[in-house]
Amino acid sequence: MSDLNVVLDRIDADLDKSLDRLFALLRIQSISTDPAYKKHCREAAEFVAADLRSIGFDAGLRDTEGHPVVVGKSSNGAGFQGSKNGAPHILFYGHYDVQPVDPLDLWSAPPFEPKIDTLADGRKIIVARGACDDKGQAMTFIEACRAYKNVTGKLPLPVTMMIEGEEECGSKNLFGFVRDNAAEFKLDLALVCDTAMWDQNTPAITSSLRGLVYEDVKLTCADRDLHSGSFGGAAQNPIRVLSKILAALHDDQGRVTIPGFYDGVRDLPADIKADLAALNLTAEQFLGQVGLKVPAGEKDRMLIEMITTRPTAEINGIIGGYTGEGAKTVLPAKASAKVSFRLVGDQDPDKIVEAFHKFVRDRLPVDCTVEFGNFGNARALQLAFDSPALNKTRSALKAEWGKTAVTVGAGGSIPIVGDFKSVLGMDSIMVGFALDDDRVHSPNEKFDLKSFHKGIRSWARILDALSA
Amino acid sequence: MSDLNVVLDRIDADLDKSLDRLFALLRIQSISTDPAYKKHCREAAEFVAADLRSIGFDAGLRDTEGHPVVVGKSSNGAGFQGSKNGAPHILFYGHYDVQPVDPLDLWSAPPFEPKIDTLADGRKIIVARGACDDKGQAMTFIEACRAYKNVTGKLPLPVTMMIEGEEECGSKNLFGFVRDNAAEFKLDLALVCDTAMWDQNTPAITSSLRGLVYEDVKLTCADRDLHSGSFGGAAQNPIRVLSKILAALHDDQGRVTIPGFYDGVRDLPADIKADLAALNLTAEQFLGQVGLKVPAGEKDRMLIEMITTRPTAEINGIIGGYTGEGAKTVLPAKASAKVSFRLVGDQDPDKIVEAFHKFVRDRLPVDCTVEFGNFGNARALQLAFDSPALNKTRSALKAEWGKTAVTVGAGGSIPIVGDFKSVLGMDSIMVGFALDDDRVHSPNEKFDLKSFHKGIRSWARILDALSA
Repeated sequence: MSDLNVVLDRIDADLDKSLDRLFALLRIQSISTDPAYKKHCREAAEFVAADLRSIGFDAGLRDTEGHPVVVGKSSNGAGFQGSKNGAPHILFYGHYDVQPVDPLDLWSAPPFEPKIDTLADGRKIIVARGACDDKGQAMTFIEACRAYKNVTGKLPLPVTMMIEGEEECGSKNLFGFVRDNAAEFKLDLALVCDTAMWDQNTPAITSSLRGLVYEDVKLTCADRDLHSGSFGGAAQNPIRVLSKILAALHDDQGRVTIPGFYDGVRDLPADIKADLAALNLTAEQFLGQVGLKVPAGEKDRMLIEMITTRPTAEINGIIGGYTGEGAKTVLPAKASAKVSFRLVGDQDPDKIVEAFHKFVRDRLPVDCTVEFGNFGNARALQLAFDSPALNKTRSALKAEWGKTAVTVGAGGSIPIVGDFKSVLGMDSIMVGFALDDDRVHSPNEKFDLKSFHKGIRSWARILDALSA
Repeated sequence: MSDLNVVLDRIDADLDKSLDRLFALLRIQSISTDPAYKKHCREAAEFVAADLRSIGFDAGLRDTEGHPVVVGKSSNGAGFQGSKNGAPHILFYGHYDVQPVDPLDLWSAPPFEPKIDTLADGRKIIVARGACDDKGQAMTFIEACRAYKNVTGKLPLPVTMMIEGEEECGSKNLFGFVRDNAAEFKLDLALVCDTAMWDQNTPAITSSLRGLVYEDVKLTCADRDLHSGSFGGAAQNPIRVLSKILAALHDDQGRVTIPGFYDGVRDLPADIKADLAALNLTAEQFLGQVGLKVPAGEKDRMLIEMITTRPTAEINGIIGGYTGEGAKTVLPAKASAKVSFRLVGDQDPDKIVEAFHKFVRDRLPVDCTVEFGNFGNARALQLAFDSPALNKTRSALKAEWGKTAVTVGAGGSIPIVGDFKSVLGMDSIMVGFALDDDRVHSPNEKFDLKSFHKGIRSWARILDALSA
């Protein structure tokens, strides 16, 4: 029996223990964007570092101005450093931080008390904040390493782990960390587990990522909240101003109206576009799962373009005035919104920010001032469609799932992957086991037990393939 | 020395005790719109009833489906019932409930811990939620009665008190209560203390009130919150839909665009318009006090029309998606807004509600549903400009303030006053001592000590004048 088969058997036999470890991590409330959870984030980092040490990694916390980065290095001996024997030195990237949990009242159980549930179609799922994004996904790789270590006493190739704690708030401090330690992390290949499958049975390799600009817009009119009976009709209302600005962001065709927004956006080559069309993603299939019917994006684009290869502008949040129960006849002093843009091609985040600020300022009446906040800029990223490592990964995924992996563009951003290429000159391979119905960033986030189990097995096969 | 002069002296001498009683009432958190404060509302009602009993009223609580109404009847003996001796039987109306206090972090001191403060210009003020609206104002009338009772052993005319607890949430249950007990409350004249002075030195009698329609609009798109990286650009965003609807409520000239909205709105007669123009209310004077410069209403109207005689549409609150600190790349399932309309002339609240619902529904895309909530409808009200009781009130106010009272229209609504006329066939005289800078419904609400003190004296003079 080959090492790999013994490793896969061990993974099957140890699944319950793997779940226990994942549950322990899921119980830690590591919400990175909210300062109130700072110590929980550190606790999650300590947990991951200790777990890596338990399987022979030389692991610890590296402090940043934000939450710490967990760095672990496999101690396979000097022989494995570098790419001796053709085995590349892998940098694995994941994150231990999670999104906020509000609105809490929409969760059917407490978000940090993970449990196994069963869907109507019989699928077993792990329910908790972070079950998928990214604790569940990151642990698939760590558990694959553990199985190797337990069976063979070592890993098939050298691995450096970088598990960060600020992905959900833009990875702000990780950029500087990677730049400052470029020599340490400039390895042979990065593996990233934070993306999705094509569907429940079809694995996917993600070859492009949209970029992100995330802005906060705060408007102020009067110097205090006013009584709408006294001042209504005469005093400028910041919610009205904000609504007008946000309503102007898209035209009737669904295109973003900010001047210069589409600079750097290229149309897809005809063959790639044909490949996308061949996937035949229908609105029923993609939007039907969340109760929707009609694509809301640019009217002249396919749905799959809207979610992977076209830039977008979305309003992620808005608040102003009285929002409690019942009525309050207030004319508020302030209103604010969070607006984010997904970028593709060569769109320049700095220019988008500048153009957006001008767009807002051009629409401000005299009695209204604006303050902007930025929560991270990331350029879009296009990775290789073809390389020896990619082909090995494809073969390993096919062996596990019985179906050829689809190569897709992802709608979301993983900010640091761009820097792995531009700063470290290192390619990344993004393989993940999320499904579209995982409710990532939403109440009742889940991860299929099958994704977790076969995800671990997939990484074991990929490590084996890459070491060959 | 006449009774009146002794009464006025007693008011001056007892001011500190009057303030102690007001402070005790201000400490009760009687927020009527929030069910969490139900028992506090009852406590405030019990406090007022006990206070009325202490000055000889036969007073108690009358239960409704909402918060109770305090009813008190002066026991001046049968001789005073009806209008014997020409002294009218007065119905005094006020309310013991207050507005919510959020945003709490903008208060410079706890809203239910009243205190005396001094403004930069030397004015002494009472600071607390309800200091003005309406606990402070209602107590000016009660303290005037107390002084009469203490000095003369009785009131100069018979008084029935109706102090309700739901004015700040639309007086929903008071309408039925007044209808069901019409015989009991159909008296000679209603006095209402819930309006403002013209300025710090000029008293005002309010002869018209705008009506109100207050609506809640909740939009739902997907059946759960989504990740904007996965679904952004493809799934309908309810904040975007809501912004477009709210932005469409006004045209570039500041007019409300809902079809039929202006039905029943008449232009002012030329002489009344000239009177308003003669008041010469400037933007600097009215908006300058809250940090604004430019009237935001209909471009072809005077500022004083915008705030008193023209109808309006205001957005009182909006919420959707992520509104906490930092970033969350959510594409929300829901967004909602509170929208209110001030009505004038013969605008029909039911028709406005219907037209508004149609306006919203006409703008909903396929993947968006709406739920409406209503927090009260009230027609606008025009009272007499001239009557013997009004003239006596004007004389009394001039004697106290040394300046002729201005007759004005009020921007806000007091829902029940319309029913006093239409159901009970009874005129109302609205006199109040609020100032434009009282921050009514806002953080740091205040009432000038001078308003409180001279307000009590004003009512003593008015009671004397009406009894003559």
